Amino acid sequence: MSAVQIIKAPTGAPDDTGPLTALHEAGLTSESVIALVAKSEGNGCVNDFSRTLAAHVWAQVLPEAAITVVSGGTEGVLCPHVTFVAKVPSDRGPVGLRARVARTPPIPAHEVGRAGELTAVASAVETILRDLGAAAEEVELVLVKCPLLTSERVTRCLAAGETPVTTDTYDSMALSRRAAALGVAVALGECSREQAERNLEGTGRVWSSVASVSSGAELEDCHILLLAGRRGQGALRALHGVMVDALDMAAVADLLKVISEEGGRVVQLFAKAEADPTGTVRGRRHTMLTDSDLHSTRHARSAVGGLLAAMVGDGCIYVSGGAEAQGPPGGGPVTIVYEVPAG
Amino acid sequence: MSAVQIIKAPTGAPDDTGPLTALHEAGLTSESVIALVAKSEGNGCVNDFSRTLAAHVWAQVLPEAAITVVSGGTEGVLCPHVTFVAKVPSDRGPVGLRARVARTPPIPAHEVGRAGELTAVASAVETILRDLGAAAEEVELVLVKCPLLTSERVTRCLAAGETPVTTDTYDSMALSRRAAALGVAVALGECSREQAERNLEGTGRVWSSVASVSSGAELEDCHILLLAGRRGQGALRALHGVMVDALDMAAVADLLKVISEEGGRVVQLFAKAEADPTGTVRGRRHTMLTDSDLHSTRHARSAVGGLLAAMVGDGCIYVSGGAEAQGPPGGGPVTIVYEVPAG
Amino acid sequence: MSAVQIIKAPTGAPDDTGPLTALHEAGLTSESVIALVAKSEGNGCVNDFSRTLAAHVWAQVLPEAAITVVSGGTEGVLCPHVTFVAKVPSDRGPVGLRARVARTPPIPAHEVGRAGELTAVASAVETILRDLGAAAEEVELVLVKCPLLTSERVTRCLAAGETPVTTDTYDSMALSRRAAALGVAVALGECSREQAERNLEGTGRVWSSVASVSSGAELEDCHILLLAGRRGQGALRALHGVMVDALDMAAVADLLKVISEEGGRVVQLFAKAEADPTGTVRGRRHTMLTDSDLHSTRHARSAVGGLLAAMVGDGCIYVSGGAEAQGPPGGGPVTIVYEVPAG
Amino acid sequence: MSAVQIIKAPTGAPDDTGPLTALHEAGLTSESVIALVAKSEGNGCVNDFSRTLAAHVWAQVLPEAAITVVSGGTEGVLCPHVTFVAKVPSDRGPVGLRARVARTPPIPAHEVGRAGELTAVASAVETILRDLGAAAEEVELVLVKCPLLTSERVTRCLAAGETPVTTDTYDSMALSRRAAALGVAVALGECSREQAERNLEGTGRVWSSVASVSSGAELEDCHILLLAGRRGQGALRALHGVMVDALDMAAVADLLKVISEEGGRVVQLFAKAEADPTGTVRGRRHTMLTDSDLHSTRHARSAVGGLLAAMVGDGCIYVSGGAEAQGPPGGGPVTIVYEVPAG
Repeated sequence: MSAVQIIKAPTGAPDDTGPLTALHEAGLTSESVIALVAKSEGNGCVNDFSRTLAAHVWAQVLPEAAITVVSGGTEGVLCPHVTFVAKVPSDRGPVGLRARVARTPPIPAHEVGRAGELTAVASAVETILRDLGAAAEEVELVLVKCPLLTSERVTRCLAAGETPVTTDTYDSMALSRRAAALGVAVALGECSREQAERNLEGTGRVWSSVASVSSGAELEDCHILLLAGRRGQGALRALHGVMVDALDMAAVADLLKVISEEGGRVVQLFAKAEADPTGTVRGRRHTMLTDSDLHSTRHARSAVGGLLAAMVGDGCIYVSGGAEAQGPPGGGPVTIVYEVPAG
Repeated sequence: MSAVQIIKAPTGAPDDTGPLTALHEAGLTSESVIALVAKSEGNGCVNDFSRTLAAHVWAQVLPEAAITVVSGGTEGVLCPHVTFVAKVPSDRGPVGLRARVARTPPIPAHEVGRAGELTAVASAVETILRDLGAAAEEVELVLVKCPLLTSERVTRCLAAGETPVTTDTYDSMALSRRAAALGVAVALGECSREQAERNLEGTGRVWSSVASVSSGAELEDCHILLLAGRRGQGALRALHGVMVDALDMAAVADLLKVISEEGGRVVQLFAKAEADPTGTVRGRRHTMLTDSDLHSTRHARSAVGGLLAAMVGDGCIYVSGGAEAQGPPGGGPVTIVYEVPAG
Repeated sequence: MSAVQIIKAPTGAPDDTGPLTALHEAGLTSESVIALVAKSEGNGCVNDFSRTLAAHVWAQVLPEAAITVVSGGTEGVLCPHVTFVAKVPSDRGPVGLRARVARTPPIPAHEVGRAGELTAVASAVETILRDLGAAAEEVELVLVKCPLLTSERVTRCLAAGETPVTTDTYDSMALSRRAAALGVAVALGECSREQAERNLEGTGRVWSSVASVSSGAELEDCHILLLAGRRGQGALRALHGVMVDALDMAAVADLLKVISEEGGRVVQLFAKAEADPTGTVRGRRHTMLTDSDLHSTRHARSAVGGLLAAMVGDGCIYVSGGAEAQGPPGGGPVTIVYEVPAG
Repeated sequence: MSAVQIIKAPTGAPDDTGPLTALHEAGLTSESVIALVAKSEGNGCVNDFSRTLAAHVWAQVLPEAAITVVSGGTEGVLCPHVTFVAKVPSDRGPVGLRARVARTPPIPAHEVGRAGELTAVASAVETILRDLGAAAEEVELVLVKCPLLTSERVTRCLAAGETPVTTDTYDSMALSRRAAALGVAVALGECSREQAERNLEGTGRVWSSVASVSSGAELEDCHILLLAGRRGQGALRALHGVMVDALDMAAVADLLKVISEEGGRVVQLFAKAEADPTGTVRGRRHTMLTDSDLHSTRHARSAVGGLLAAMVGDGCIYVSGGAEAQGPPGGGPVTIVYEVPAG
């Protein structure tokens, strides 16, 4: 159940299922896929229908139990693509990276961005860890896709006498990401439940170093993928680090150095990026938060994506915008999955 | 006349003349400024009034002969700022970098993007070289600000019985940049006049490795700044290279290595960036040319700016979008000005 | 075959097939639908995946022969919706409005926006007219969905040694619409083939008064719906007029007056809108063509949609942007379908 | 002091002071101008530098005491223009419309959008009324330009230990408009101070029927222009009404009917528009609040501007977006100034 293979392939459009060919060429079937993690070419914001379109077509070809995490936004040099996470028979080699997925129950509209969402995610992550027999320290990535509030959900919520966490649809994306990330942090012991709740209220400064959360209108529950492994073991491995700001090349260079020393080849990179909430990066003013033509998540993906794609020489990487409680403010977690050829 | 000092300072808004303080603290007066090169925080496209506003306020405090090259667009981690190029008495040390500016005559609307603009720029660059006594090989940067076609200019052009090169205002920016860059290439002997003219017609593939051109609605002539120097001489020096694509870290790392070996400190970096016209970067599809919400110049500045800012650890750099005939397709020239402390 | 019913219903999202309920409530089945004409909530430009998503889900529930014309962009007060055009047994009353659909063969990339596309559309419209036994004068609307050029199609076209009409993906939308509209005009005798071809070359000023064309990446052929009828006959009727500019209330008021005099109730309104290419409307400058943050088609839909929705008291109308050769420059055709209760 | 003339003229760019010619042709000097009310062609949001540019150039040619209300955003058919409000000797005819301006003290960042801003505006409006000797019932328009919170103001506010009403720069525009509009409502007796304060807290539903407020980064105080008059008197007159939603043609038609009956000619129209916060207009869903590519204020200006420009046959009208507490939710006040030729 836990041995895993990861296959990445570019797409020609959000509804392109051509990557199935790459899957088959790797000797895998679509039945073996437990998670699809994709970047699609919409704006990554509320009205990103490229996400819905991709989720729609993949739901028709993947097992019902598979989760889909489609993150919108391939600004700059980023390339739309999908990453398959597939189960493989464990006799293919010593167990390295392991993966498992889960879904939370649907998050009611008035719990989006609140304690209810946090709890649901934390509980699901705890269950995965238990099932996987993995320690929190072994976790290299927890990818989450969480819901947002559309105008329609806000209206129904209000009509039901409930108060949504915000009535601004774009803002709901950030609040939902924050609650889910804090759920990961609590489950992994990165902070206490009390600290996480203070963050929900806007004070407190705890965050997860392995959570990567994106929100979308195409689902009402949360989809979760967890990757864990013992460092330096197996053919497929992962490492994570934390960029402290958008210019933090060193954090990524450190990971690449380890990979190089192990003789590894980068399979996929997963990163979160955001506009520094102080309005500055290393003391220099940025204008991502005052640009009313372009949301800051699009700015952040483009800039950090430009850096990371250059560092690995490939635009086909997973860079997602909006890193609330995912790494320190203005920074974000980075996980690199890599392959080490049998000796 | 030719010894030069270069001072960089961030701005809090397009109409912020606060950087004059930095100029004065460096022992310079506004009278000594021959060029202001700035990044302002608009969209960098046709209706970028941050450029006009900046040009307007600086025209009131700088000498009439000074040229202003204000380039719009500080996407991602880029920081709005100004760079002063000032004349300094040559007795401050051995002559390193030299600078000189020029203006072409106004470019008639029907010549924008055509041979007339190319010729005007080529002629101005040739004059600068002659006045400066510099060889083409010594040129490290030719910054040009050129006009674009507004709806009004298009209409007047048509009314006068002339045919503009395009009636699309955004497209006119690219065509104007191309003609001006080819003017630089011809003047510096990087290509023949015939080759340049074939490029204007859409065939041919010549380009300049030192031209950096941006277009704007705030002027009808071209403003030109040329930097030249003998490599390894003087306290203020410059180096240029060419990024062959948006991921070309190596080209910039090479320059930084030389600077480090000379014990230098980066003063300012000037780069051009563009969406690869093939729709791919190193074989990976990008979506900059099919994003109808966001022009490709904004995408390119953000991505390449994210990389370069990280490499020099500073968002306060000059990255301009739209690199037609400036470096190879999808790439662009990079010039770094640096200071070497007296031994 | 020719008697028709037209049912309109709002959608909650691009993939909402809820309107099938309205269809069934009207006593119709999805098998009776010959055309789906929809407005979806994307940007209406190149990367509008709401169109693709809508086309995708409707293709799964409608007959294979049915055509889908999904037009993106519901700016301002416009409401996303679908309009079903269904065949009804002719014994339901005297024949009023008649409808018929057709598809052209796929348009090769190098013929998009050129004579090949014009000819294919003209030929299809002629066939419809013949099959329907309708005179050109009886035609009230010819709705066309035509292809555009994506980066990928441009690249493949160039690789095949062909020259696309443009390499700018957004521009290809306008050129494709123009060629298709001229095909309609030729088929209906609104202009000669020679005049139409001069228009393709950018000179000449002929246009259709009943064509309504939108372009999309979701198809490579053209989908065509033609409505024809004898004025004042039957329970379901249609009228068309032409707005000469975006402020032309009178043209629409004239149609509404006739409808009111006949005791009719508006069922649906179909209109095209565009930014006046002169940069002015009734002598007043507009800024739709110099706004690099927002394409002019979005501006035009919003403004003309705001007027027309107010005139009929309903945001659930079909207003499509980009009216090249559809009505005079800056204006566009308007068709109103209405129902007259049996006396 | 109170007799007034109103002159409207289009501009070719935000920094175009050409309208001075129209002023002079009307026999007026720039010294007589007490207010400049303008629409400029930016995005009307946080980073609209067209507003700053216009305010900048007009400050150099108008009397220091004159106020400037520059509202950004000329979407769709709207035409950038300026409207001069000038004092004229009262012997030019019987007093009709009267005008007076005021400035509040600077609004501290932590009071923007809060009671402090409300009080400052209310107090200034009360002073104007007293000075003008006008009754609240005679007021036809209170135009206000109010500040917003930039990233820099937010940061300074937080550093000073104060909590801004929001840290989202775009949201601060709406909250500032709301507080200022409620200040007008309180001063004119349209609601009680207590009711207004409940609105500030997000409950309560009071609004002004004559306030028209826009916010901008170009000022830190509020600029106020009040127009009052006795209906049916004088050569220059005004009427106001309230659109209950974005489709409310009837409200405006009623005003135009009175004007026509009095033999009047429309001089200028002032309107506010906003996206209905319920997400629907007359029961039809709109997508202005879920469009992450385009802020709802831009949508609303374009749609309502398209309707109003058609109704008066002129795109050169003042339509401003964001009508918080200005008219009912989803609607907005409309004031028409008109001239009645001497009998």
